[in-house]
Amino acid sequence: MSRIEVFPVPGVPEIRKGSDLGEVICDSLSKGGLRLEDGDVVVVKQKAVSKSEGRVVRLSTVVPSPRAKRLAKKEGKNERLVELILREAVRVVRSGHGVIITETRHGYVCANSGVDQSNVGKGLAVLLPVDPDRSARRIRKSIEARSGVGVAVVVTDTFGRPWRRGQTDVAIGCSGIVPLVSYAGRTDAYGYALRVTEPAVVDEIAGAAELATGKLDGIPAAVVRGVRFTRGEVGMKSMIMPRRRDLFR
Amino acid sequence: MSRIEVFPVPGVPEIRKGSDLGEVICDSLSKGGLRLEDGDVVVVKQKAVSKSEGRVVRLSTVVPSPRAKRLAKKEGKNERLVELILREAVRVVRSGHGVIITETRHGYVCANSGVDQSNVGKGLAVLLPVDPDRSARRIRKSIEARSGVGVAVVVTDTFGRPWRRGQTDVAIGCSGIVPLVSYAGRTDAYGYALRVTEPAVVDEIAGAAELATGKLDGIPAAVVRGVRFTRGEVGMKSMIMPRRRDLFR
Repeated sequence: MSRIEVFPVPGVPEIRKGSDLGEVICDSLSKGGLRLEDGDVVVVKQKAVSKSEGRVVRLSTVVPSPRAKRLAKKEGKNERLVELILREAVRVVRSGHGVIITETRHGYVCANSGVDQSNVGKGLAVLLPVDPDRSARRIRKSIEARSGVGVAVVVTDTFGRPWRRGQTDVAIGCSGIVPLVSYAGRTDAYGYALRVTEPAVVDEIAGAAELATGKLDGIPAAVVRGVRFTRGEVGMKSMIMPRRRDLFR
Repeated sequence: MSRIEVFPVPGVPEIRKGSDLGEVICDSLSKGGLRLEDGDVVVVKQKAVSKSEGRVVRLSTVVPSPRAKRLAKKEGKNERLVELILREAVRVVRSGHGVIITETRHGYVCANSGVDQSNVGKGLAVLLPVDPDRSARRIRKSIEARSGVGVAVVVTDTFGRPWRRGQTDVAIGCSGIVPLVSYAGRTDAYGYALRVTEPAVVDEIAGAAELATGKLDGIPAAVVRGVRFTRGEVGMKSMIMPRRRDLFR
């Protein structure tokens, strides 16, 4: 057991293409009188990462395919937006009720391939980072070089889920942290073997950070302190359910 | 934005049938020199709630049906355990690879109808509470009567999810808190209407609590402080995806 603290990174300026997010976060913490500690997890929202990497598209420049036009009409969506959604997807998992659920190139199943129009400006759409683990690693190295302490970085996005209403923030990229805690080989206080228990600690960290940042205040990052995690560089691919074990394909 | 703190409730004794969880939690906090504050969210793990409500079954007393025997054989599971899983379910959603995914009477889709053998003792299985919202309400009232402050209570369990490996703790019951934050009618800093954004704050709280308690130390409760939430008594039924909107039925 441990005590967890989560605090938003305040006063982060508008992120532009080429912004060094590690630098921006360290500067903002410093101005806010906050210091990183060894073992902190720095959580950065996808949108800030995507903006810094230039993953922003002006919709008027997108030419929709016939397939995008058909799907857009069916779901009552903008056909240029649907074109982007399809380009970012390897398959459409479900569509209906104005919702398009896809599997992204990274292997995530989510609404609209993660393409989003909120918090970016009129006529623009933001795509997920090409390689969110690599984004997380770059941010981690920048933060560690500036702060002198060892941290983990988790890049998060807001995903819905089947069967339950609402969304939670989940991890889409990570560096310096093993995303699943394995209890394999451990037993509970009664001697029962915890064979299949693997808490998705990066997702719980992502959700905890969202409690601190919210959606409206333009806060793109938070620090989660006190989490017991295993340092490592296995990335989020270890979290994608292997196709042969996936009961919901 | 806000600063969040999560701390485990230390030193909770073994929970037995009839234990008043609100009393147990207040006593343990008090012995640990901790005080509840107005607006705290007290997170209680399902297993403690189920034990206090006598939802524990000795497997040797369960007579498996032919259907349970067939499914148990197919998935390589104990047939008495499968009998309990089927009794708690309204339907089997998927089964395969030794996993049985069901929809529970409450409307939750999860592995094994939430029936669990960890942290309970050999030969025993724990069922989900009959009405976890009612459980949460009872605990909240007991805590409020003792502490004199207004709190919310969230009852949590550990659920897997499709497409991603690992599990996160999620809410299965709540009292004193509206489970979804609605941004409907709100706009982001760029004027974009956040139509469909409804953070499942109870699930993010559940995950944050799990970061503090872990699975091994026998800590059945945690306090999450600093969350901005709406007080209310709508319960978890508001979080179940309506059948007509469910793309994954």
